[in-house]
Amino acid sequence: MDDTTSKSAILLIHCPDQKGIVISITEFIFKNGGNILYLDQHVDTGRQAFFMRIEWDLGDFVIVDEKIGEYFETLVASRFSMNWRLHFSDEVLRMALYVSKLPHCFYDILARYEAGEWQVEIPLIISNHADMQPAAERLGADFVHLPISRENREQQERRQLELLQEYRIDFIVLARYMQVLSDEFISHYPNRIINIHHSFLPAFPGARPYHSAHERGVKIIGATSHYATSELDAGPIIEQDVVRVSHEDSVEDMIRKGRDLEKVVLARAVWQHLHHTVLVYENRTVVFE
Amino acid sequence: MDDTTSKSAILLIHCPDQKGIVISITEFIFKNGGNILYLDQHVDTGRQAFFMRIEWDLGDFVIVDEKIGEYFETLVASRFSMNWRLHFSDEVLRMALYVSKLPHCFYDILARYEAGEWQVEIPLIISNHADMQPAAERLGADFVHLPISRENREQQERRQLELLQEYRIDFIVLARYMQVLSDEFISHYPNRIINIHHSFLPAFPGARPYHSAHERGVKIIGATSHYATSELDAGPIIEQDVVRVSHEDSVEDMIRKGRDLEKVVLARAVWQHLHHTVLVYENRTVVFE
Amino acid sequence: MDDTTSKSAILLIHCPDQKGIVISITEFIFKNGGNILYLDQHVDTGRQAFFMRIEWDLGDFVIVDEKIGEYFETLVASRFSMNWRLHFSDEVLRMALYVSKLPHCFYDILARYEAGEWQVEIPLIISNHADMQPAAERLGADFVHLPISRENREQQERRQLELLQEYRIDFIVLARYMQVLSDEFISHYPNRIINIHHSFLPAFPGARPYHSAHERGVKIIGATSHYATSELDAGPIIEQDVVRVSHEDSVEDMIRKGRDLEKVVLARAVWQHLHHTVLVYENRTVVFE
Amino acid sequence: MDDTTSKSAILLIHCPDQKGIVISITEFIFKNGGNILYLDQHVDTGRQAFFMRIEWDLGDFVIVDEKIGEYFETLVASRFSMNWRLHFSDEVLRMALYVSKLPHCFYDILARYEAGEWQVEIPLIISNHADMQPAAERLGADFVHLPISRENREQQERRQLELLQEYRIDFIVLARYMQVLSDEFISHYPNRIINIHHSFLPAFPGARPYHSAHERGVKIIGATSHYATSELDAGPIIEQDVVRVSHEDSVEDMIRKGRDLEKVVLARAVWQHLHHTVLVYENRTVVFE
Repeated sequence: MDDTTSKSAILLIHCPDQKGIVISITEFIFKNGGNILYLDQHVDTGRQAFFMRIEWDLGDFVIVDEKIGEYFETLVASRFSMNWRLHFSDEVLRMALYVSKLPHCFYDILARYEAGEWQVEIPLIISNHADMQPAAERLGADFVHLPISRENREQQERRQLELLQEYRIDFIVLARYMQVLSDEFISHYPNRIINIHHSFLPAFPGARPYHSAHERGVKIIGATSHYATSELDAGPIIEQDVVRVSHEDSVEDMIRKGRDLEKVVLARAVWQHLHHTVLVYENRTVVFE
Repeated sequence: MDDTTSKSAILLIHCPDQKGIVISITEFIFKNGGNILYLDQHVDTGRQAFFMRIEWDLGDFVIVDEKIGEYFETLVASRFSMNWRLHFSDEVLRMALYVSKLPHCFYDILARYEAGEWQVEIPLIISNHADMQPAAERLGADFVHLPISRENREQQERRQLELLQEYRIDFIVLARYMQVLSDEFISHYPNRIINIHHSFLPAFPGARPYHSAHERGVKIIGATSHYATSELDAGPIIEQDVVRVSHEDSVEDMIRKGRDLEKVVLARAVWQHLHHTVLVYENRTVVFE
Repeated sequence: MDDTTSKSAILLIHCPDQKGIVISITEFIFKNGGNILYLDQHVDTGRQAFFMRIEWDLGDFVIVDEKIGEYFETLVASRFSMNWRLHFSDEVLRMALYVSKLPHCFYDILARYEAGEWQVEIPLIISNHADMQPAAERLGADFVHLPISRENREQQERRQLELLQEYRIDFIVLARYMQVLSDEFISHYPNRIINIHHSFLPAFPGARPYHSAHERGVKIIGATSHYATSELDAGPIIEQDVVRVSHEDSVEDMIRKGRDLEKVVLARAVWQHLHHTVLVYENRTVVFE
Repeated sequence: MDDTTSKSAILLIHCPDQKGIVISITEFIFKNGGNILYLDQHVDTGRQAFFMRIEWDLGDFVIVDEKIGEYFETLVASRFSMNWRLHFSDEVLRMALYVSKLPHCFYDILARYEAGEWQVEIPLIISNHADMQPAAERLGADFVHLPISRENREQQERRQLELLQEYRIDFIVLARYMQVLSDEFISHYPNRIINIHHSFLPAFPGARPYHSAHERGVKIIGATSHYATSELDAGPIIEQDVVRVSHEDSVEDMIRKGRDLEKVVLARAVWQHLHHTVLVYENRTVVFE
């Protein structure tokens, strides 16, 4: 594109595979004046499922933004029983950041935010500990300290849900937030809660994965970012990466090496989420990179 | 796809970017009864260049195979000044394998060939040394020993060109073939001679890259597979990969670690070439993985 | 070393940590005329365990090879309750190769053998299928076809043990050998049976790991080489590596990408074993690279 | 070690290889009551050079800290013409941080500092731009703004040298500091100025390496941390790492992917420097990990 980047629309689509899907979508865009910037499509032949991400320039598009969804549903989507999501390139999503005591992912996100790496707002930070309050306030974000105990978890989650609504939060990032969220809570933000787990899932789910990795004597450790679901550490994986370790690495060395991995893997997952490249299907992600 | 994999056609296209390209191509396929299996498209906005790989099922396609190219040129390509190549999924390309004395890439390719990993024929093996003759003959390939000296290089290359024509060779793989090919020779097989260079290009072109890497004290070594062009080790890169080394690795250790890298990187490049996923543009590749 | 590489001795040692271990060992070598070529030592502080690999030139060493073990035990090892193994750099280990129907790891090992990459003898190849017989015989190795059924497994393993003894086999490599070995069998070759498992263990043990990886939607797949123990896929890990996959990779794509990983990871593990760099301790390996 | 981690001493040694070095060093430590915690030694046989890093517990060591160097020089080092450096585990090095306008490496280091990841002091931050002043001051570090022009470079470097002395700076980290330092300046901090270069050196030295990488069409980009020397981007490499890119990645995508690489690679190099694991020899590093 030239330097005056104009606004574009993004459609994420999946549906049962059949003939004529691609032509119908591209016709809808072309005939109405859209210029396709990016199209990635694939068919999962085992599941007979069709997936597409398509982005087009809205400069000369004849349908107004507010009506694109309605027109697309009527003219195209309904014929193919499509699941679809529409986004615009100028959207600024609102993130709530959850943190406990471990600072590395939290600081990394704040640094990206301050440096303007992401097109996002972070109006709200929630923690079960007060430790990160000073750092949070530097950014102008509201920091809400909600300590969690077995007794008050339900009540605190209700309070969180109120806050999330009040701050018009679009998605939640768990930056090494050490609490398990209830199914009820998660159900309010399906595929909109991004967690970072400090292992190469499905190896070492649950607590203390570096200790387990050390005990097992693996030669590589990993980190996994996924959408939270009701089953712990079993949600759709967005991104993973690994780093080599050796017998000389103690648990503490693994924790240190893992920190950098966790922050990079979480940041990549958030980037993908912000760029609307992730589509969830049967507990797996399609990431249109 | 279901188990009766039917024949498909593959188009690789690049042209100046403009509106209406995607729709024209997808219409051409859809209106003539083709079912799109795979579509990957992108625009290099800096160069205003459009790239696409599209594959469709020929089961119900109304244009006979021999006419698809002509029709596409007339109805679509000419309007957009497209460069395009058409392939069919049942093509069996014919590879000539060039080898010198180093066996690892050569043996690796023979093993893949014997194991049926690739849809390819290898009727001809050319070498400037006789060492690999027994292994070559086990496969039923013809082994032609053409020793190269400064004096006879031109003559031997003419002989090679005759052989390549005689054996109806589609592309050449240089499996650590230690001779430099002339521009004249290369010009007969543009983007159809795949070389493996034992460094992470553009670092350490030319001879003895592991010695140079050791001298420079790098912490990672690499291998690069590229199409041969008249400029040595400067052709379009198809695939690269790396492996970590340390101060404890001697040049010999690097050579050993590099061997596995070279064979895997070369094999991946050949795989991409055989699957018609590589498009060359301004000395760079677009690899539609 | 200068170009006339002379013979060296290698000691692998582990014992409870205490003061004076390093000095005792280095004194034993130095005072008897040995020149230390390589020394790697570390302490697992959690387990208070000491580990060392030390290699010295035997050129001027005053103790004859056959007596080194006895002298070391008497003068040094017994004082520190050491577990130790002594090797010589000119040892040529004898490998038995187990294979089923999948050829890639098998061919890869044969190619390395033919090319002289390893200092090893492979006098014996055992398989439950006859498929690899022609390739095996090209090398001059004896190929013994021992089909396995539920009924004859015990009997066939007894036959194998006889063959292994007859051929004076030092260690076994399971090159994607698809049979489970009995505890009884494994107990004859502790830490001397090298297996390759086609997943990033402990994720996806057991059968069909690529199918499981695809089902789980991981973004990276791996391979693991380990010593076989009585617990399936739970033995000490020697080497692991990974490769990136995406949602576009079918199970078949994963199998293809995994093949190259498996052969490289297995080969690295065999190389470490041949160079006496691996020490097993509490079901984990110390690999002195 | 147990939880009361006691103080240890670290020796980094290199010298011409000969018999008796290891025994002399280990005797010096053992006979004086030291308990060896870690010993890594290797011989570069090509250069006949001996390298060692040895660390021992000082709990029962009979030589006082201030005298260890003198005694070691007299009793051991002088006999073998050793180059050596002595460090203590409780040293807190003082870092000066140089930054320009790019915030990612700078913020990453500040976050590690705030989180207590490193045993270091950062009393001084120097920049040719004022942009990072607010972030710097949050940490209590002094921020000195010294704009550089062709005319005032010499004068500003003299001012810097005064500041470095005044703040008793041990080493300098160039966190994407975009100015070239003079040979004169560098000569004051040999192997104590750590730079991060945004390419996989020796590929793409100098300015705009991501643009060059994009132009060349590489499939992998890298970052390199090295000690600054008088030759630009040619100093001893401490750490490198890479990340995969594709034809779809624009220069901007490479810059984004590179940012995370740069900060991790620089942080690893600083960690190695702080732990006294790096020894420089003939423009290469030995990193005793």
